Amino acid sequence: MNRKILLDEKDIPRQWYNLNADLPNPPLPPLGPDGNPIRPEMLAPVFPMNLIEQEVSTQRWIDIPEEILDILYRWRPAPLRRAVYLERFLDTPAKIYYKDESISPAGSHKPNTAVPQAWYNKQFGIERLTTETGAGQWGSALAFACRLIGLECKVFMVRISFDQKPFRKLMMQVWGGNCVASPSTETKAGRDILEKYPDTAGSLGVAISEAIEQAVTDPTGKTRYSLGSVLNHVMLHQTIIGLEAKAQLKSIGEGLPDIIIGCAGGGSNFAGLSFPFTADKINGANIEIIPVEPTACPTLTRAPYAYDHGDTACMTPLLAMYSLGHDFMPPPIHAGGLRYHGIAPMVSQCVVEGLHTPRAIDQIECYEAALTWAKTEGFICAPETSHAIAATIQEAKKAKEEGKEKTILFNYSGHGLMDLSGYDAFMSGKLTPYSLPDEMLEKTEACLKAYPQPQVRKTGKW
Amino acid sequence: MNRKILLDEKDIPRQWYNLNADLPNPPLPPLGPDGNPIRPEMLAPVFPMNLIEQEVSTQRWIDIPEEILDILYRWRPAPLRRAVYLERFLDTPAKIYYKDESISPAGSHKPNTAVPQAWYNKQFGIERLTTETGAGQWGSALAFACRLIGLECKVFMVRISFDQKPFRKLMMQVWGGNCVASPSTETKAGRDILEKYPDTAGSLGVAISEAIEQAVTDPTGKTRYSLGSVLNHVMLHQTIIGLEAKAQLKSIGEGLPDIIIGCAGGGSNFAGLSFPFTADKINGANIEIIPVEPTACPTLTRAPYAYDHGDTACMTPLLAMYSLGHDFMPPPIHAGGLRYHGIAPMVSQCVVEGLHTPRAIDQIECYEAALTWAKTEGFICAPETSHAIAATIQEAKKAKEEGKEKTILFNYSGHGLMDLSGYDAFMSGKLTPYSLPDEMLEKTEACLKAYPQPQVRKTGKW
Repeated sequence: MNRKILLDEKDIPRQWYNLNADLPNPPLPPLGPDGNPIRPEMLAPVFPMNLIEQEVSTQRWIDIPEEILDILYRWRPAPLRRAVYLERFLDTPAKIYYKDESISPAGSHKPNTAVPQAWYNKQFGIERLTTETGAGQWGSALAFACRLIGLECKVFMVRISFDQKPFRKLMMQVWGGNCVASPSTETKAGRDILEKYPDTAGSLGVAISEAIEQAVTDPTGKTRYSLGSVLNHVMLHQTIIGLEAKAQLKSIGEGLPDIIIGCAGGGSNFAGLSFPFTADKINGANIEIIPVEPTACPTLTRAPYAYDHGDTACMTPLLAMYSLGHDFMPPPIHAGGLRYHGIAPMVSQCVVEGLHTPRAIDQIECYEAALTWAKTEGFICAPETSHAIAATIQEAKKAKEEGKEKTILFNYSGHGLMDLSGYDAFMSGKLTPYSLPDEMLEKTEACLKAYPQPQVRKTGKW
Repeated sequence: MNRKILLDEKDIPRQWYNLNADLPNPPLPPLGPDGNPIRPEMLAPVFPMNLIEQEVSTQRWIDIPEEILDILYRWRPAPLRRAVYLERFLDTPAKIYYKDESISPAGSHKPNTAVPQAWYNKQFGIERLTTETGAGQWGSALAFACRLIGLECKVFMVRISFDQKPFRKLMMQVWGGNCVASPSTETKAGRDILEKYPDTAGSLGVAISEAIEQAVTDPTGKTRYSLGSVLNHVMLHQTIIGLEAKAQLKSIGEGLPDIIIGCAGGGSNFAGLSFPFTADKINGANIEIIPVEPTACPTLTRAPYAYDHGDTACMTPLLAMYSLGHDFMPPPIHAGGLRYHGIAPMVSQCVVEGLHTPRAIDQIECYEAALTWAKTEGFICAPETSHAIAATIQEAKKAKEEGKEKTILFNYSGHGLMDLSGYDAFMSGKLTPYSLPDEMLEKTEACLKAYPQPQVRKTGKW
């Protein structure tokens, strides 16, 4: 039995896979303030043109520059592992594989896109990047990438995570990053929110507004903004996860998995694992592909498919996506990376098409799954990752009930060593089950009604 | 070029290597309170007999039970990596390899012995282990091992680390461990010290006393004590590191390294990497083997070779080792794992023989090395590990000066994600260079003079 399936450095994928080349209906274009589709050059104050080109590309395969691979080799190819100890514990006929993205320097999948983003910005002559971070995974990853590539890095960290995770800030500082709590007083967006909600726990939406504002208002023009999820080029960079996994499964004679699972906040780790397999599903393969979100922030399972801003201050274009509304203030659950009101338009389109079948799980079940993981596989997972593990356990139990030897593949998006306060809250009985109350969805409706309704384009057959 | 040298699961070492079979003069036997060598059965209240047998064994190869391997496979074999990015930065002709022990669930090399110790105790019918921890690496490792094997675990954590690293305690709790600050009021040893030094930062010596006291006073007889370093059987279990490294170097056609480096507190990670190569040195190979310690706790470089207790309350037998005195209270440096007054008798004997050539490095140089590592290799190392990196950088620079293509191998004993407060202190300028003042060594002399002088047995030729 293979517990660890390793890929040699020379077999690392040399191209990213762009699902937009194969989707029956690619996502609808973002809309500008005038309601018309935005033109690429309108994004130029925010992103460098080389990344904007990737953002709008429909080319199936995009070369990964050698200089980027040279950095990724620090931890990639990442191991594919078989969770034999969890299998034994569950006494399931299912085979459980997981892609271990926790082994990167920043401890999650995030450096897979932080590195190319920093590299393309540097190529374009940019000197400084701004960004937001929720749980801190993304901020650490970008600080790491900027350090190696030689850019300044400014991170707006959602207040609740900033307070719960003091060591995340230090981690960014070790890599030379400058991290402040959001909302901050450094930006107009931050000051406006603080005036309205002085005690706010913050949100990714607000932090994004602050980071964009600092990028576009830099008079030198040498600052750009970097986003760790949601956008097409971020999904693109993360496909290296699924491409490696596919090569690794093939190397041990496994066929395509029956079930693919990833936790989904903005969608990037889920997309990174699942998109290369979504292509197989479009071509007829029978794969169940499950993005998992918290019941406290049920974007894919309960929010409408709508046009909405990616940030709270409405600085981004309108994106066609599932959204709880850009003014949604998610409850302070510990899976900070899953507290986002929207989700990637590409993932949204896959859900519209029925290619992906989302699921919401309560945080209590997720922490129970995390403790089961710690006592079987031995590792401590990120609170976000626990959602993927909880769904995996559900599916492994179902396979046992059905007596079927299914193959499950999930993304182990990050470790939880910097997120132990969440475990503490759970173990000391301070957490309770939490599903978003219905009345919050009325607020969502009110927030979204000002915007155009996206056309639902569903082929429903691939 | 090979950046990652992986070893297949089927090639994992199946026996531990016991250097005592090959040392020209094995360490002198421990002495009991009467000054006579202790008999194995005298240790029975503290350790299970199966581990005591390993402690006194002179058998060269000792089989690793399959059940133990089944647990180690979670992260072993560990990768051997080439630090190409550091090499480039230093522009050195030296080839720098390191064994990555940071990838274990507890984040260090410590589970390599925690797992066998828990397993042998369980086999012997023991239900509960007590231990001490400095930086928290060992306590986490034993909690992890006990969780997987089904034992209770009680950890006395040195007060300064307990306060500096609140998340270490949570980490142990995730694995079901019970962690208290030492000195505690739970033991007589702890209460005595608290009365004398109410504001003490604690020390490993005190914490060991507390853990032993709780083990030997359990009326059920089902509790034993577990030590994470110093003892022969701990060194034995750690040799899997060096055995793997040797197989990995061989797999890429590298000969024996010219220089081997490890940080040394109690000596276990250093011994684990170096002992299998020390055998080659005894057989004539030209290898420089360097244990690195902090100038703040210079056991091997400035303390006498003496008989001393392993703990502050004098509960352990007298061990023949370099020692700063069992009542030594090390300054509160951030490399908690290197704040021990003594060091393994086996390592001590190697130093006596000239097989190992110790070096002390100041914490400022070590943190500078850690930041160099973070900006080149990208990973954040443990403060202990930074001592090995600092020595590696010294040797790589020397190789450059000499124009020699030397091969350096060091042990990357753990990551620093739980130790960021030390980085914080350094980056904010709160740390200063610190070498132990000479007058402290007078205290050492006074502490040790009551004990028999060990005979210095030095062959000096191997």
